Amino acid sequence: MDRSFRAWLKPRLVDGTYFGFIVEDDGKPIAGIGLMELSWPPHPLHQDDGRRGYVLNMFVERSHRKRGIAKLLLDLADQEFSQRKLQYAILHSTSAGRPVYETAGWQPTSEMAKVIE
Amino acid sequence: MDRSFRAWLKPRLVDGTYFGFIVEDDGKPIAGIGLMELSWPPHPLHQDDGRRGYVLNMFVERSHRKRGIAKLLLDLADQEFSQRKLQYAILHSTSAGRPVYETAGWQPTSEMAKVIE
Repeated sequence: MDRSFRAWLKPRLVDGTYFGFIVEDDGKPIAGIGLMELSWPPHPLHQDDGRRGYVLNMFVERSHRKRGIAKLLLDLADQEFSQRKLQYAILHSTSAGRPVYETAGWQPTSEMAKVIE
Repeated sequence: MDRSFRAWLKPRLVDGTYFGFIVEDDGKPIAGIGLMELSWPPHPLHQDDGRRGYVLNMFVERSHRKRGIAKLLLDLADQEFSQRKLQYAILHSTSAGRPVYETAGWQPTSEMAKVIE
C-alpha cells in the first residue's frame, strides 16, 4: 500500500496536482493535510470546471490535539482551493473526524460505494 | 451546464474512460447508465490501482420503471468494471434511487463536501 501510494504520488507532486501543508513544532512535523485536484465531470455545483478538490491524509499528532490545528489546516485547504479556482471539494471522514469537518462547514453527501468482485 | 459537460465528455469518449450502456425499446432509448474510470489515489480497498469506477447519469424512462431495468444496468456496470479490473466503484444517489442501489449491493460512505467560496 505504502509503495503503491508513493509511486502514484511522485508524478502528482511534480505536476502540482497533489499538494498540502505540514505544521511543525520545533522543527518536527506534528500535523499535516494532503490536498488534490481530482478530475471530475462538470456538475451543477462546478458547472464550468472539470475538477474537485479532495482532502486526504489529514493528521494531528495526539500530543497536539484539541488546540484547533485541524481547523487551521482545513482553513488553509479552503484558501488554497479557492486560489486554484476550485469550486467544490470532497473528503472521506472517520467518525472521530466528522465533528471537526462539520465545524469547518463540511456536510455529508449521498455517496455510495461497492467493492467490485 | 450541458455545453460544458459535452466539451468535457468528448475526449473521454475517445480515450474510453467514459463509457456506458443504453437500453432501447423498439429502437428508442428508454434507459441508460454512464460509467467512468476516475483517477484516484491507491486506497486500502484498491491498493495496487489508482482508479475508481464511477456511475453517473443513470436514467429509466418513467414508462419503463418497476421492471428491473435499473438493476440490469447496475449488473452490466459491475461486469464492465470487473472486466476493466476496477476494484472499487462509487456513485451519488438521489433519495429515490437509493433503494435500487442498496438492492444491487451498494452501501453509503462517509463522504463529506463543501462549496468553496
